[in-house]
Amino acid sequence: MNVCARLVRIVCGMALVVVPAGLFAQASGYEAVNPFIGTGADGHTYPGATVPFGMVQLSPDTQINSFKHSYKWAAGYRYEDGTILGFSHTHFSGAGHSDLGDFLVQPISGEVRLEPGDANQPGSGYRSGFSHATEVAKPGYYAVTLADYGVRAELTATARVGVHRYTFPAGKPAHVLMDMRSSIYSYPGKVLWSRLRVRNDGTVTGMRETRGWAPGRQLYFAMKFSVPMATHEIYDKEPLPVEYRGFKTPGNNAADTQAMEGRGLIGVFDFGEMKGPLVVKVALSPTSEDEAMANLNAEVAGFDFDAVHAQAKATWEKALGAVQLTAAPDMRTNLYTALYHALLAPGTAMDVDGSYRGPDNQVHHADGFHFVSSLSLWDTYRAEQPLMTLLEPEARTTDLVRSLMASQQESPFGMLPVWQFQGIETWCMIGYHAVPEIADAVMKGIGGFDANKALDAMVATADYAPYGHLGEYMKLGYVPIDISNAGTDGSSHDESVSQTIEYAYDDWTIARVARKLGRNDVAVRFEKRAGNWKNVFDTADGFSEPRKADGSWRVPFNPAKAGAGSGFTEGNSWQYSWYQPQDEAGLIKLLGGDEKLVAKLDAMFNAKVDPKDYADVEDMAGLIGQYVHGNEPSHHLAYLYAYAGQPWRVQERLKQIVESQYKPAPDGLVGNDDLGQMSAWLLFTGLGFYPVAPGTNEYVIGRPFVERAVLKLPNGRSFTVVADGMSAEHPYVGSVTLDGKALTRSFVTHEEIMRGGELRFVMSGTANKSWGSGSGARPYSMSR
Amino acid sequence: MNVCARLVRIVCGMALVVVPAGLFAQASGYEAVNPFIGTGADGHTYPGATVPFGMVQLSPDTQINSFKHSYKWAAGYRYEDGTILGFSHTHFSGAGHSDLGDFLVQPISGEVRLEPGDANQPGSGYRSGFSHATEVAKPGYYAVTLADYGVRAELTATARVGVHRYTFPAGKPAHVLMDMRSSIYSYPGKVLWSRLRVRNDGTVTGMRETRGWAPGRQLYFAMKFSVPMATHEIYDKEPLPVEYRGFKTPGNNAADTQAMEGRGLIGVFDFGEMKGPLVVKVALSPTSEDEAMANLNAEVAGFDFDAVHAQAKATWEKALGAVQLTAAPDMRTNLYTALYHALLAPGTAMDVDGSYRGPDNQVHHADGFHFVSSLSLWDTYRAEQPLMTLLEPEARTTDLVRSLMASQQESPFGMLPVWQFQGIETWCMIGYHAVPEIADAVMKGIGGFDANKALDAMVATADYAPYGHLGEYMKLGYVPIDISNAGTDGSSHDESVSQTIEYAYDDWTIARVARKLGRNDVAVRFEKRAGNWKNVFDTADGFSEPRKADGSWRVPFNPAKAGAGSGFTEGNSWQYSWYQPQDEAGLIKLLGGDEKLVAKLDAMFNAKVDPKDYADVEDMAGLIGQYVHGNEPSHHLAYLYAYAGQPWRVQERLKQIVESQYKPAPDGLVGNDDLGQMSAWLLFTGLGFYPVAPGTNEYVIGRPFVERAVLKLPNGRSFTVVADGMSAEHPYVGSVTLDGKALTRSFVTHEEIMRGGELRFVMSGTANKSWGSGSGARPYSMSR
Repeated sequence: MNVCARLVRIVCGMALVVVPAGLFAQASGYEAVNPFIGTGADGHTYPGATVPFGMVQLSPDTQINSFKHSYKWAAGYRYEDGTILGFSHTHFSGAGHSDLGDFLVQPISGEVRLEPGDANQPGSGYRSGFSHATEVAKPGYYAVTLADYGVRAELTATARVGVHRYTFPAGKPAHVLMDMRSSIYSYPGKVLWSRLRVRNDGTVTGMRETRGWAPGRQLYFAMKFSVPMATHEIYDKEPLPVEYRGFKTPGNNAADTQAMEGRGLIGVFDFGEMKGPLVVKVALSPTSEDEAMANLNAEVAGFDFDAVHAQAKATWEKALGAVQLTAAPDMRTNLYTALYHALLAPGTAMDVDGSYRGPDNQVHHADGFHFVSSLSLWDTYRAEQPLMTLLEPEARTTDLVRSLMASQQESPFGMLPVWQFQGIETWCMIGYHAVPEIADAVMKGIGGFDANKALDAMVATADYAPYGHLGEYMKLGYVPIDISNAGTDGSSHDESVSQTIEYAYDDWTIARVARKLGRNDVAVRFEKRAGNWKNVFDTADGFSEPRKADGSWRVPFNPAKAGAGSGFTEGNSWQYSWYQPQDEAGLIKLLGGDEKLVAKLDAMFNAKVDPKDYADVEDMAGLIGQYVHGNEPSHHLAYLYAYAGQPWRVQERLKQIVESQYKPAPDGLVGNDDLGQMSAWLLFTGLGFYPVAPGTNEYVIGRPFVERAVLKLPNGRSFTVVADGMSAEHPYVGSVTLDGKALTRSFVTHEEIMRGGELRFVMSGTANKSWGSGSGARPYSMSR
Repeated sequence: MNVCARLVRIVCGMALVVVPAGLFAQASGYEAVNPFIGTGADGHTYPGATVPFGMVQLSPDTQINSFKHSYKWAAGYRYEDGTILGFSHTHFSGAGHSDLGDFLVQPISGEVRLEPGDANQPGSGYRSGFSHATEVAKPGYYAVTLADYGVRAELTATARVGVHRYTFPAGKPAHVLMDMRSSIYSYPGKVLWSRLRVRNDGTVTGMRETRGWAPGRQLYFAMKFSVPMATHEIYDKEPLPVEYRGFKTPGNNAADTQAMEGRGLIGVFDFGEMKGPLVVKVALSPTSEDEAMANLNAEVAGFDFDAVHAQAKATWEKALGAVQLTAAPDMRTNLYTALYHALLAPGTAMDVDGSYRGPDNQVHHADGFHFVSSLSLWDTYRAEQPLMTLLEPEARTTDLVRSLMASQQESPFGMLPVWQFQGIETWCMIGYHAVPEIADAVMKGIGGFDANKALDAMVATADYAPYGHLGEYMKLGYVPIDISNAGTDGSSHDESVSQTIEYAYDDWTIARVARKLGRNDVAVRFEKRAGNWKNVFDTADGFSEPRKADGSWRVPFNPAKAGAGSGFTEGNSWQYSWYQPQDEAGLIKLLGGDEKLVAKLDAMFNAKVDPKDYADVEDMAGLIGQYVHGNEPSHHLAYLYAYAGQPWRVQERLKQIVESQYKPAPDGLVGNDDLGQMSAWLLFTGLGFYPVAPGTNEYVIGRPFVERAVLKLPNGRSFTVVADGMSAEHPYVGSVTLDGKALTRSFVTHEEIMRGGELRFVMSGTANKSWGSGSGARPYSMSR
């Protein structure tokens, strides 16, 4: 935790104390951000330096995880660790799976050790102890003192360049070690090939190719030092077979080579005793060393660390200024940190000249758009991408859609991305949720791409039979649990219910776009598919259940069963049975009325659950009964009371969730931030509304947790949220006005927000049970 | 052996019977070539289909060699083998080290087995038995019947595309298997990464990256079939760790994927029962799948196998027509096959649009030249490249020099290539013999490049201290045998005498170019270095010997010692002591006169040597005493008698060598063809002259083995060699005329040949001991 944030906490360290505006001097959004939030518990965020949507995330790694520890160290850093291996240039913010940690650099004074060593044995390797007291983390800046070396390390970044400033102690030779073997989630054979080259002018370039989460991923770098290096050494810890070893280096002399290739390379760059700080700048490129050099030259001309830092800070001030919040300090810290986390991905994945690596692992050129990747689509289509579409920083949605469309063209399967990073597909998670992201953009009138071609790409994806049992889905109307040719890994059919339910929602968004574009044949076909969730819904007990190919339900059925063999993805029937954002009215009909849905939701929230029961199921964290706030399938659930005409119950549940699941501390996120989705949920919820069903252009109203918020819209207008009379004693919404007129429905539309204006809540100590209760006052459902 | 060649042998199966012109109906040069020559014994040639200087060498592989067998199977095929694994697209012609064998394709009828199986157990794998009786090999064409499958396989090629025609038997399903694991010189971990992708139109593309002789080498392909495939399967025999396996394929279903990445891929493409032949065309690219596709489309539009074959044949007819030979049939077959082998490398290494991979393993663009690679420079600078410069097919020398210069610019070390293929440096062998290749081009007036920049590249290479102990060489004037920091492999200093001797020659060629360009400072410095061979020449016993850094000779000294620890490269002091082509007169002076050199040479040729003594020394084959015709350090030795004024002794030795070391049969080459050098020796020698010292512009006259030869020169003129009265009874040169005037010296110059005209020998039964004996009649030596 950084000093400023801690001071604020000391002064006003009460959770959710709602106080009148003006009582606190409210620092800028930038000052309110605490990058340590989420670095403990299961948040999987990193504290290092980056700029909005950057290619570089320059951050300390405290552990490169092994098979056994891949989940917890997904961001390379855990707040409870006591040693730092070095600073690597790529990190996911809040991912569940792990990879990256590319190009680990460690400043060393004195003796150089080539192996990382044991965290419990000081001096056993190049890793160094550190104290949190020496750490500073701000948007675009990180600093720490490496205790073993007495080196003050500061980090900042541009989009494609990480800049390090190392202040070495006097009297000892200074070195910079680069361990090309180091990777987040390391295992034997992960580094397929790597290269280190010291050019005549002292520039170091190189690359590595890894078989990790993204198979066969190549990444290149170019590194320059502010001071000429005195000497250097390159080692290969995994040399070629002995017969060929003699041909690997020009002089057959490992000690004096200027370039090496192999699978176990370490470079050590020596600077002697330094008189001032050493600045190191490292540019990345997904395509080549030459492009990395071009990126370096384009973004960071000299070695002025402070100037790069100032620029990073200014970029963040501007980006975070898109939302102006008045709230209690802890809430403000939570919300601005949420906005910070929401602005990290999808990240730039192309060179300054537009070159990028596509899902075919080949180099392409982005013509007239900005290619982005790190697409955690199963997560981000829910609220993260709608938040980006609302704030539209730098035309991100247009670039995203064009990147998705380009990827579909370059995909060996003609499919839109599923979980892609640095352009490479991982096939992680289920569904084809690039589809609702594009649909949301089309429905909200975002331009800059050919909507008809986008629809073609969506349809091609949804019709690609080999993917996730879509063939069976199209034939039967659902994915059966008992597929005989289920593939070699034995797990694919375990997610049949979740697949069916999510496909149906995605299909509905295709139909929406097709209607808008007048392509009614497509619309009719996908409107039919949009109802497929009913095919796995058993009206006998009111749950979504695994169904066999012959039409029968699999017995016995236990709605609490999650994980392998359950038919559900990172969850169970308690969360998935109520996921039909396109048609909650249809669900209510099947259940038998509003009260039935309310009863189901209450049963879910109030279930008596021992969290240990789900300790083995990845990502099931943040439990409130069977509600799992730490994972995405639950993110819309609190808002569903509004579909049953009971928005006051939404307000109660949101208070319960926000108070229990977020805090301004390293363990402040109960689940993976998932590249911004956990954070986007909080930011929307804090503003008082949430996009339950992207594709409807509606935001379901909950209750605000801010006194006032001003959204700077991309069209130049402002949309203001005000909560009159908000206090701990006023947890309910008494009434709502939009631009001064009473708003009796429980949703606002995207168009209403984009017009600019004011959404004013009058908070109340008692529930207003009539507001939003009429059937015309409820959010969209396709069957109503 | 193909049928035509065998018929010729039956009719005229006598070695070296010299008969009058016109007695035999002489077929075209194309018809005379026998690609099987060198596929047995140590020739290491391949019998498959290629065009002159092609990127593709499409040829059967009979064994993918392991650590123990890498040497003998360097070309993938050995004539004594009885099974064929399939047909792969890249092969070296006559290399000592092994690699390539990229993209092995096997046609299969009936059941598909995924492993190669055991050659001794029929049916144990996908390999098939075959009989030489079914084989046909012609320039640009190869055919064989795969006995196990009853498949007739025919192969042809363009520069970048291999074209297969498979005729399957009726009644069984036809398949094409591609084993991405298969490689010449296979070992665990060699395939770093590979990719197979079946595109929607049935095109298959992919790549692989290998850590072989050329580390981290990437090669891409695109493959199209003349008939739509019915189904396909892709397998991964070395899948990712189980945690990530589920994310590797879009459907989690290995059987129905359209693309896979990994380290153990096999593709099987199914065509059902075929009604006619299946044509398969496979294009290569060093840079990308897209470029492979572009190469495919540019070079082979349809599926007309016969048309591609006809084009390949026409290309060879033209290329082989550069020399028109009248000679006895066996000699003619030997010589045209030698010309064929000489025209295989260096090969095209760029895409049709000029993209290529340079020694920095990055993609560059050849601007205004044709990038070539497969540079076996330690071999080819001697006679192979001078032959190319003489015949200059398609401006090869200009392209070569520009490719070398581009590689030097792109080299991480700023060095010209040493042993490079597909753009990647292997650091194989010693010396910097790109230098004499460029120097020879400059001295012979080849244009199309900047000679001053070329000289800069030569000097930068010769001055790069870390390479091959050049630092010590420049300091001491020789490479000492006892270098303390000799590197980790312990072998580098074992070649110190050979290194010193070859560096000195290379240095002399730099001086020659510098003089020509008027850069006298460079010339003076390198003229001094050109004498460095004397620093390892011990006048006490008249041998080149290992010398220590303190100036003393290492004792004991044994001139017959070769291999590890000897100080010599693939040889011993008997071959290396007489390697100063720049100054044989200087050697004669040190030895004490002409007769001393003659005595040394005779002692070498007449030494009693048991070849078993050198069985462990790679490439020491074809022994005549201590003369080793199978390896390059001996290639100039027979001609040295001319420097002592005794050309008649040259004539005797050449007869002895040619009669014992070449024959028109699979075991007809006693040593590796070394990318054409063994063959170029024979062709020059057959014509009657040989470039002992590239850089002098002189060819030392030996004796012809043809009755008549017409060289079609690149300037449009013709140079004719005639041997009057040649017969077995007339092994000596009685007299020589050039353009009708008596030629009394024992050499001709490049300028004389390029003028066009006639070199006429009158053969004789007795030696003319006065011809060429005067000191003014002898070839160039720098100290004379």
